[in-house]
Amino acid sequence: MLLHTIKEVREQIKEWKKQGLTVGLVPTMGALHNGHKSLIEKSVEKCDKTVVSVFVNPIQFCPGEDLDKYPRTLDADNKLCDEIGADIVFAPNPKEMYGEGHILSNDFLTYVIPPYFYTDKLCGKSRVGHFDGVCTVVNKLFNIVQPDFAFFGKKDMQQLIILKKMVQDLNIPVEIIPCPIVREESGLALSSRNKYLTEQGKINALALSKLLFNIKACYNKGVVDTKYLGETAYSFLNDNHSLEYLEFRDKDTLEEKTIADDNTVVFIAARVENVRLIDNIELR
Amino acid sequence: MLLHTIKEVREQIKEWKKQGLTVGLVPTMGALHNGHKSLIEKSVEKCDKTVVSVFVNPIQFCPGEDLDKYPRTLDADNKLCDEIGADIVFAPNPKEMYGEGHILSNDFLTYVIPPYFYTDKLCGKSRVGHFDGVCTVVNKLFNIVQPDFAFFGKKDMQQLIILKKMVQDLNIPVEIIPCPIVREESGLALSSRNKYLTEQGKINALALSKLLFNIKACYNKGVVDTKYLGETAYSFLNDNHSLEYLEFRDKDTLEEKTIADDNTVVFIAARVENVRLIDNIELR
Repeated sequence: MLLHTIKEVREQIKEWKKQGLTVGLVPTMGALHNGHKSLIEKSVEKCDKTVVSVFVNPIQFCPGEDLDKYPRTLDADNKLCDEIGADIVFAPNPKEMYGEGHILSNDFLTYVIPPYFYTDKLCGKSRVGHFDGVCTVVNKLFNIVQPDFAFFGKKDMQQLIILKKMVQDLNIPVEIIPCPIVREESGLALSSRNKYLTEQGKINALALSKLLFNIKACYNKGVVDTKYLGETAYSFLNDNHSLEYLEFRDKDTLEEKTIADDNTVVFIAARVENVRLIDNIELR
Repeated sequence: MLLHTIKEVREQIKEWKKQGLTVGLVPTMGALHNGHKSLIEKSVEKCDKTVVSVFVNPIQFCPGEDLDKYPRTLDADNKLCDEIGADIVFAPNPKEMYGEGHILSNDFLTYVIPPYFYTDKLCGKSRVGHFDGVCTVVNKLFNIVQPDFAFFGKKDMQQLIILKKMVQDLNIPVEIIPCPIVREESGLALSSRNKYLTEQGKINALALSKLLFNIKACYNKGVVDTKYLGETAYSFLNDNHSLEYLEFRDKDTLEEKTIADDNTVVFIAARVENVRLIDNIELR
């Protein structure tokens, strides 16, 4: 069922809640791929009813980012959700979410702002305000859908950690279910932005996952010095990669690790063909 | 029923929701007076179940404010709530609300930040960060109690306007019920901070309400020039009053009014015996 308004969604949810049914939410920006598919499948399996939101959220894009050219494939997304067994596809337009004529700045809009310690690093360093936009829209979606469970991919690990922190800090009555990264057979982590890559670009992009797998293999052999683990990784990169960061951080607090342990996540961001790609791996 | 933990409140609320009962929330900082009493009475009348929260919220106090000496009278508050017919008094300690050892700054805590246009004026000008703390704690209370209705006094009119904006911006499924200011027979608006005043101070404080009533009387006679209305008001003030602001603003958007109309609220803040007092009046 494709719905475009908050009112329609609320009415349907109210009906379900009356019947005592559990509701799962899978927030997406559309352009759904097998990564999203795995989230939706998990929700359909775990919850009585599943809502997939499809909303390219303007306030999480920074100036100069790809808001306008971000892939929009609602017909295909809706069809996929239907096939998997989602009950509602909620696809509002920006006006429905933020009101008409609203200036989408913190001068005129209430924002949910995650802690600076979590946002001043990794992707937050180059994407200033990005996670403010993410937390605000996810908070809104939580209030609209009132799900029991919400499903997020570990591909966006910093986002996942920040949303878990938001739920904890604001006592939000939603359980966040983290879901594994889905990769192509090659190892490339699925991303809607992979569509921007040429075939050669996709090959070059493999360095990111290979490098992460290698770090994990070294860790499993007993190497724990993150400086050493990081330096070894650079040999996977060449002129086709513009590295933004490669960092070892705690999976809950995002504190930096000098000695890797089972709570360590290795985060990488790099541009390939000027497409910004991210990936990560848990050492546990 | 006096409860101190989030878990206990949630369990009770869950039970009520299962039975299809409506829940009203009256958020307070305790030191309850007849103003609070009127809010609780309204909730008891309107809702099947009423929760009164009593929590002196540290993050809405600014440095140098009266956090430590703010009156705490939980036994009396609990008794009053009981008499009026409230079902739960929720009195958590700061550790229950914000976790142990947490640094209560936006470095480590997710905040709900109302728009700057609403907070850079009136009380927000001198109480920097105050409304961030208010919105954050009210958001938390909404998530813990999940009320159908929440009751706030018009005494804190800027707070009320900001909370209504928060509910709208974040699609919070709670209806805010604004309640009239309760005044002593003298006209003095009730406030927990009135306890800081001497008898003479309370007499001096009457200038605030008198001045507001006079402005409304002038408006009702057809005077709409807010500059003129404001200047007339100054004659009520003397050396016993240290005026912080006297402003004419829109009741929804907080925009300044040069010509008063039925949507205008007159806001005043002044110190008497160094106690900061606020009051306001709707011209409608």
